[in-house]
Amino acid sequence: MDAILALDIGGTKLSAAMMSRDGTTLAKQRGLSLASAGPDAMIARLLDLARLAQRASGAPIARAGISVGGPLDPVAGVVLTPPNLPGWDRIPLRKLVAEGLGLRENLVDIENDANACVLAERRFGAARGRSHAIFLTMSTGIGGGLILDGRLYRGASFNAGEVGHQVVLPGGPVCGCGNHGCLEAVASGSGIASRLRAQFDNLPAGMQESAGSAEKISAEHLFAAARAGDSFARSFLDETLALLARGIANLVFILNPQVVILGTLAVHGGDLILDPLRQHVNRLCWPILTRDLQIVASPLGPRVEDLSPLAVALEAESPIG
Amino acid sequence: MDAILALDIGGTKLSAAMMSRDGTTLAKQRGLSLASAGPDAMIARLLDLARLAQRASGAPIARAGISVGGPLDPVAGVVLTPPNLPGWDRIPLRKLVAEGLGLRENLVDIENDANACVLAERRFGAARGRSHAIFLTMSTGIGGGLILDGRLYRGASFNAGEVGHQVVLPGGPVCGCGNHGCLEAVASGSGIASRLRAQFDNLPAGMQESAGSAEKISAEHLFAAARAGDSFARSFLDETLALLARGIANLVFILNPQVVILGTLAVHGGDLILDPLRQHVNRLCWPILTRDLQIVASPLGPRVEDLSPLAVALEAESPIG
Repeated sequence: MDAILALDIGGTKLSAAMMSRDGTTLAKQRGLSLASAGPDAMIARLLDLARLAQRASGAPIARAGISVGGPLDPVAGVVLTPPNLPGWDRIPLRKLVAEGLGLRENLVDIENDANACVLAERRFGAARGRSHAIFLTMSTGIGGGLILDGRLYRGASFNAGEVGHQVVLPGGPVCGCGNHGCLEAVASGSGIASRLRAQFDNLPAGMQESAGSAEKISAEHLFAAARAGDSFARSFLDETLALLARGIANLVFILNPQVVILGTLAVHGGDLILDPLRQHVNRLCWPILTRDLQIVASPLGPRVEDLSPLAVALEAESPIG
Repeated sequence: MDAILALDIGGTKLSAAMMSRDGTTLAKQRGLSLASAGPDAMIARLLDLARLAQRASGAPIARAGISVGGPLDPVAGVVLTPPNLPGWDRIPLRKLVAEGLGLRENLVDIENDANACVLAERRFGAARGRSHAIFLTMSTGIGGGLILDGRLYRGASFNAGEVGHQVVLPGGPVCGCGNHGCLEAVASGSGIASRLRAQFDNLPAGMQESAGSAEKISAEHLFAAARAGDSFARSFLDETLALLARGIANLVFILNPQVVILGTLAVHGGDLILDPLRQHVNRLCWPILTRDLQIVASPLGPRVEDLSPLAVALEAESPIG
């Protein structure tokens, strides 16, 4: 029985998994990206991991799916200049992986990570059976993957889904993109951390102590303090969720989805985040838009690392909808 | 030769035009909506106009397209509760028009006005040959019609495209929807008028005089004063365009369109509006998103009234893409 090779290329970690089409991991190898060594070395290491996983699985590779940071051109199979992968510039990833593994090029597909995630959610997660779904990565940044009318929506030049750069707080914290008050600058993991860092000396003593130093503070410290009932943490979190809700409400007004699925932060935060977030969105949007709307955390957990590139390959093999 | 019946139902005017498929108006009748008389009387009057237009054209009706305010269900052919049509509540418009004109129901199609406009732009206007286009009505309100991946995008419950309710100025003027600082409350015709009205006594004397009274002031007075070089008007207009650009930038980040087409206000304002608007959007968005992006005023002019319901019918008859 052949299997799908699922490759995940991140700024810090690489992974290669041999997967059955139903989502079972047959064999898996992980390694560090060592991104500073540049694309050639990183891709060589990825191919090594892939060969090891393939051998361990005992199965031939039917096709390969790759999840990698954008911007990229999924039709040409070329990665442009992802901010998390220094030195990458128009890298023909599909071709390099196909050649490295002895596959035909049309059996290798690449997709940006947020798009790969929403494909995984539709096949294995919270968007199963849905034709209108939005996935938000909610990690270091906030990227978006869109399923619209049953199909992955990539936009005119494959750059759609940059939902993290909606301005939700005009004049707010500066974003990596140069604008002020982007959703990502306010409500992503790194956005929350940097807003906490900026007022570290005024944080409740408990939060200061658990973090140890301004440099180490993260959204997790905020969640822990809010769970323990700290009033500063609760109000800071609610303010953050009101801004996140503003970005989600924009998406709901514009796209009228059935489900909005939130990644990393919401998985960690759970109902502490989701309940107030739903209330804020319901306040902002009309009942006609929210009546049948679900806002949920991704149910896939760490399996998303394998399932998202798997879904990229499966979508190329036999598209849903 | 048969022809298409193009029906436009507005809050103040009704129109019925017999159209050839290439966009030529063969015969046309217009009347007042007299909306306060309720849906039955309005639809009876619309059918009268339609019969007159049909007779004047001498052509049989091949099919009918209707543009009407949403929310509506285009699949069931039912108009729900449009804010501009008092007393309308789940009106089976397709059925009523089909029966009234002796047409089969599957030859009558309804679409909300912004969707009808974007279909007209794709067939006859600025979105010809484009598969990713956004139309903004820019009239009393700001509604949106979306062509995504070559198809009209309606959303899960046909309520997508409510782009006017993105919050672009948190804490800003109250919107008809109850939220504060919606794009529509700030940058639509009525939004601009009500912001000017709120500070009427502080407006330049020239604007006060040309308007006559606070009640009568409109965006046109602002445009005229800005064209004449009035510095208050120029700065008020630029502030407005910066906020409009924020809403458009959100759409560009989320949907990566090829063209954004603006209706009424931009048609009247022309380059006075479009040039600074493009500059603001270019400042907010990334080159990868704006390099091939066009932001234009609708080229269809008043013909849109006939062309948009015509496009609804043509899209049902032989969809593009």
